[in-house]
Amino acid sequence: MREVAIIGVGITKFGELWEKSFRDIAVEAGLKAIEDAGIGGEEIEALYGGNMSAGRFVEQEHVGALIADYAGLAGFHIPATRVEAACASGALASHLAVLSVASGWYNIVIAAGVEKMTDVEPDTADDLLASSVDRKWEAIYGATLPSLFAQMARIHMERYHTTSEQMAKVAVKNHANAVHNPYAQYQSKLTLENVLSSPLVADPLHMLDCSSIADGAAAAVLCAAEKARRYTDSPVYVKASAQASDTISLHDRRDITTMDATVFAVKKAYQMVSLDPSHIDLAEVHDSYTIAEIIAIEDLKFFKKGEGGIATEEGETEIGGRIPINPSGGLKACGHPLGATGVRQVVEIAQQLRGEAGKRQVPNAEVGLTHNIGGTGGTAIVHIFSR
Amino acid sequence: MREVAIIGVGITKFGELWEKSFRDIAVEAGLKAIEDAGIGGEEIEALYGGNMSAGRFVEQEHVGALIADYAGLAGFHIPATRVEAACASGALASHLAVLSVASGWYNIVIAAGVEKMTDVEPDTADDLLASSVDRKWEAIYGATLPSLFAQMARIHMERYHTTSEQMAKVAVKNHANAVHNPYAQYQSKLTLENVLSSPLVADPLHMLDCSSIADGAAAAVLCAAEKARRYTDSPVYVKASAQASDTISLHDRRDITTMDATVFAVKKAYQMVSLDPSHIDLAEVHDSYTIAEIIAIEDLKFFKKGEGGIATEEGETEIGGRIPINPSGGLKACGHPLGATGVRQVVEIAQQLRGEAGKRQVPNAEVGLTHNIGGTGGTAIVHIFSR
Repeated sequence: MREVAIIGVGITKFGELWEKSFRDIAVEAGLKAIEDAGIGGEEIEALYGGNMSAGRFVEQEHVGALIADYAGLAGFHIPATRVEAACASGALASHLAVLSVASGWYNIVIAAGVEKMTDVEPDTADDLLASSVDRKWEAIYGATLPSLFAQMARIHMERYHTTSEQMAKVAVKNHANAVHNPYAQYQSKLTLENVLSSPLVADPLHMLDCSSIADGAAAAVLCAAEKARRYTDSPVYVKASAQASDTISLHDRRDITTMDATVFAVKKAYQMVSLDPSHIDLAEVHDSYTIAEIIAIEDLKFFKKGEGGIATEEGETEIGGRIPINPSGGLKACGHPLGATGVRQVVEIAQQLRGEAGKRQVPNAEVGLTHNIGGTGGTAIVHIFSR
Repeated sequence: MREVAIIGVGITKFGELWEKSFRDIAVEAGLKAIEDAGIGGEEIEALYGGNMSAGRFVEQEHVGALIADYAGLAGFHIPATRVEAACASGALASHLAVLSVASGWYNIVIAAGVEKMTDVEPDTADDLLASSVDRKWEAIYGATLPSLFAQMARIHMERYHTTSEQMAKVAVKNHANAVHNPYAQYQSKLTLENVLSSPLVADPLHMLDCSSIADGAAAAVLCAAEKARRYTDSPVYVKASAQASDTISLHDRRDITTMDATVFAVKKAYQMVSLDPSHIDLAEVHDSYTIAEIIAIEDLKFFKKGEGGIATEEGETEIGGRIPINPSGGLKACGHPLGATGVRQVVEIAQQLRGEAGKRQVPNAEVGLTHNIGGTGGTAIVHIFSR
């Protein structure tokens, strides 16, 4: 298998984009990535699109062909593939794009992620989100995402003395980072008091512990590494790409304070590149809820199990801390347009490793990691990149 | 890239399976394939699942993880990927499964296709099917699938003198084949008169020119060819796997009597294996409507453009004819559970090449082809297999 590099990235503003359609934002991100790569559309040999639920949000399936068509690529008749793994759909698109180039099937492909969530009522969106967990044994009984993550939080608090303040600190940190991210839904600071006084959604999680419904799209152009310097002076190399699964239901897991899908995916990723957590300079992790970031930084082995809360409280995950987590603002402050998120993380790491992240730049960023999960962790996908 | 072989296949009955759930049928097909391969579940290294619209049909996304979980594979934490390309979702799962083994990433993987369509009202199902075409520029104006295929039929009739009788003959032939297929939804013969006197759905297409809504699932276990004989005495080799796209809207095509996605996919497939149409002994093609089979056998170069109708009339596509098409009964008689169909075609060709197709066996079948499209041809995927 040959090495793969990112030669271009593109992203839309995340937020309530009522004036733009599903296809508009997908194409906007894709064209920005193509322009950033400095290639012509005719050089794209295949498209991998991550999307969770366009069928229900905008009544449209066949999303791969739709995006290729509206991006002006239909005349080239390229393979256009849509993949879905709930909230990890974007990372899954990236993963398959990497495979398709690493294998030698294609030289240049585009990975895109897109979701248009605000064209339905918030109540409907809530129900649609619940299709990422087990409809038959969880959602139908009212166990939607916030309540399931609240269960994880409750056990984590009990077992490891994690506090509401530590969880709130995740939100405060990520919002502070997002102030410098023009693509984030919320470029606004929060205080601990803001988070802790916001309404309880599912005890112990407050409204401001939760990521938000959003529209958005992101894209990355991938190329065989040996050819990358024809297109860019700052290729970002894909050092590892690993995917794992777990039970879709939370109640079937051996331990709900650990996501085994993350544990298996990151183990494989570290093996692929012969690195360990100490080599990672920064990471974009899946903070759909603040407790999810705490669990993620433990499962990714940045911190020991049970120490994610205290590490967050002590500022170790801030930009300038031991390992900056979610310098973009994360799902929490960027918003979480489901299928877009995994590719947005890739875009952020690419910009960081290229030294183009402006005021949210992590100094001396050499190696970055992305971590994207589906549902409550039925899927986890980890990528490691280097400059 | 190394060669890939099928070492096991499994399929459920297709039809109105009201007593079984989405997950039940997916698992049933998968376990049959695993049993047919004679392997243990722990040998499966990845799962690729094709499904068009579980989000809308059964309110469930995250379908890859769900199926892996309910198949008892969650404990192995294997990558579980769901892909979607409307009615071509099954072939897309097969295509990616082939890539994943050919590339060397995995040695043994499972490709599955599943759809549960009969848990919603038929009117709802009709609307859901229309999400395979352009919601914004086709479906919203009432241009659903039957009316779009009727437009293709009308031009084909005008330009090539194709007749309603020739189209009806597709249905008659496929139903005659399905009499011997225990997994088909309809194991019943039709006459030309039955088809032509059935109600017009969209002139010139009658009800019996259309494939039907169904539940069903199919699966195939793929293995690196060099290891296939450890598991089976009758491996079926994947000689080519090719995917192409086109505009999602019919009105944007250069010619609506040809599907360019099929033309590009099959051209690539023939190149991969250095074969031409004369080497193909039988094919499973996408007859979602009878006109679709006529267009397919022309686009696949079995017959010249415009001669698909007369070839069908003269029996050239019957078992025993020059090139047997849809010996299984096709989508027309097997039923068309969207995401399952592309894998069902693979199962049929595998059974034919293994000489296990019973009374519908094509004599001396050495090389077989599958052809699966999404929507009106926005996606086409072609596989070529040999024994």
